[in-house]
Amino acid sequence: MSSDRERLASACPTQHPPSTVQLAHGGGGRRMRQLIEGVFLPAFANPTLLARHDSAVVDVVPDVTSRGRVALTTDSYVVKPLFFPGGDIGRLAVFGTVNDLAMAGARPLHLTAAFILEEGLALAALRRIVESMRDAATEAGVAIVTGDTKVVDRGKGDGVFITTTGVGLVPPGVDIGPHRVQPGDAVLVSGDLGRHGIAVLSVREGLAFASPIESDCAALASCVAALLAAGVTLHCLRDLTRGGLAAALNEIAMDANVGVLLDEPAIPVSEPVRGACELLGLDPLHVACEGRMTLMVPAASVERALATLGSGAARIGQVVEAHPRVVVLKTGLGGSHTLDLLAGEQLPRIC
Amino acid sequence: MSSDRERLASACPTQHPPSTVQLAHGGGGRRMRQLIEGVFLPAFANPTLLARHDSAVVDVVPDVTSRGRVALTTDSYVVKPLFFPGGDIGRLAVFGTVNDLAMAGARPLHLTAAFILEEGLALAALRRIVESMRDAATEAGVAIVTGDTKVVDRGKGDGVFITTTGVGLVPPGVDIGPHRVQPGDAVLVSGDLGRHGIAVLSVREGLAFASPIESDCAALASCVAALLAAGVTLHCLRDLTRGGLAAALNEIAMDANVGVLLDEPAIPVSEPVRGACELLGLDPLHVACEGRMTLMVPAASVERALATLGSGAARIGQVVEAHPRVVVLKTGLGGSHTLDLLAGEQLPRIC
Repeated sequence: MSSDRERLASACPTQHPPSTVQLAHGGGGRRMRQLIEGVFLPAFANPTLLARHDSAVVDVVPDVTSRGRVALTTDSYVVKPLFFPGGDIGRLAVFGTVNDLAMAGARPLHLTAAFILEEGLALAALRRIVESMRDAATEAGVAIVTGDTKVVDRGKGDGVFITTTGVGLVPPGVDIGPHRVQPGDAVLVSGDLGRHGIAVLSVREGLAFASPIESDCAALASCVAALLAAGVTLHCLRDLTRGGLAAALNEIAMDANVGVLLDEPAIPVSEPVRGACELLGLDPLHVACEGRMTLMVPAASVERALATLGSGAARIGQVVEAHPRVVVLKTGLGGSHTLDLLAGEQLPRIC
Repeated sequence: MSSDRERLASACPTQHPPSTVQLAHGGGGRRMRQLIEGVFLPAFANPTLLARHDSAVVDVVPDVTSRGRVALTTDSYVVKPLFFPGGDIGRLAVFGTVNDLAMAGARPLHLTAAFILEEGLALAALRRIVESMRDAATEAGVAIVTGDTKVVDRGKGDGVFITTTGVGLVPPGVDIGPHRVQPGDAVLVSGDLGRHGIAVLSVREGLAFASPIESDCAALASCVAALLAAGVTLHCLRDLTRGGLAAALNEIAMDANVGVLLDEPAIPVSEPVRGACELLGLDPLHVACEGRMTLMVPAASVERALATLGSGAARIGQVVEAHPRVVVLKTGLGGSHTLDLLAGEQLPRIC
């Protein structure tokens, strides 16, 4: 419940601006207007947002000649804690959704942002998150064009949950998805695995590693655009979030009805992440990233793809006709075993 | 925390399908796939959703000749309780977002839906909500094309929060918003006020009224389309949600820099709602609706607008040059007073 002092501040809104989120901030009244004008509008200011109507009206199709199809994606972010080495929930909420657009080959255009705030959240924390979203949106080249704020009572939320929805434009001729995957395709990853999950876990569990591990949280859209510009044929892209590489490849294998054969020694995992995983009994192939993707490309595109992705990328396996819907891992010792989906996730609330 | 039996069920996923939401349902693994395949896909099935890629790729522009602008809107729904007379959180999440599109004159096309589930939510309740969303989407003529599911630990959420984002098409020539409001415009409402707020409150507080009050929860898009088809000039539309009529008119008065003069006896409030408000000490002008809107139209369009809206609608006042940014209420007794924004909301978590 609110303290007496907070109640008083709520009753006298012009005299004591509160330092924490209150139920009144979600009520559609003066306090909500103050929150929007004081926190959200200054950070996200753009003409569409400033029109302040119930809907943002945008020109999705920039010009008639480049008429493409529109990609739509939505994700809620409930990561705990809100701030972690290398990022925070705001950065994640922008990049995560931008990345889902990029996985369809779409150029991200617009984001919407809906906040569910818990009564009692420090306004300073909210401001820090919103400013981080602003910076991430600028970095990814998208505008936050409309939003929403709700407040739930103390103990019915957890600080802040953010839902972002992204709208992007798929260039004519681009068609990326599991339906295009075929036996013979090479399986690549864009960089080393597992940093995001371990970075979040380290704060949550109060662990200190010899080498600090920062989240890999990053936008992948410019990387996908560079691959398309370089003429790489992209059959399928998938960013590695919940469930890590194992979940992404199992999903694709099931949806495309193909097998995947991985070469374990080729899978890039940094020494600090490997060490942390050993210490914690985790398998890095199941740990979430937030700025990495797996790619399925035809053999002829492998070299060009790896050159465009840069030194962190690797070819880690191939799509096969044998064992459809199953991912098999060939170990360094010559053995092999199935890499399955976990029932759930080793680390809940990672994104 | 989970009971031992739930933990066991989680460890043996094929033997004991759980009856409640578990953290594993949000983990990106097998349990999440079961939830998506068992609950969401059967209800929302459409070819775009079934493609199951990170982004839904849609044709927003149905044909080149009707090229219009695109409207985007997002809202989180945190209503408590989840089920109330006349509706539930799912119906609200569809209609609320469809209505925000309609307020820009847009024809709703696509919805996205993101769920934040609390560990322990009964799957039967989730199924009921999802089926209600399916029915509401069918009624409103929109498709749910992509979605997301996150699970938070027990005590860190409140059953289910839903964020929907809507994409609509604004027909060429349609331009509706506060910037078009001008002195002389008539102020209308599409029906009687306050039913949604009172219906929610009645369940929350365990009140039983002599006449049961059902939520006015409804989609307004077909109504707006009918007004446009009838040739009504619409300057501004605003659905009456949090903060009720008072909040909507104060927002518009501030954003358009005009005054609003209301004729209190003309404002339609049903007898049961009026009685409940008196009993509870609430002002019906501040109570939320979820299927009502206020309209600003030029004098020449009033008759046609009222005829199209039907018998529940009323002309309740006008836009004036005097007292800019202030809403004034002329009472039945000849007096007048300012109708202000509340600091917060009389009834939190109403939507």
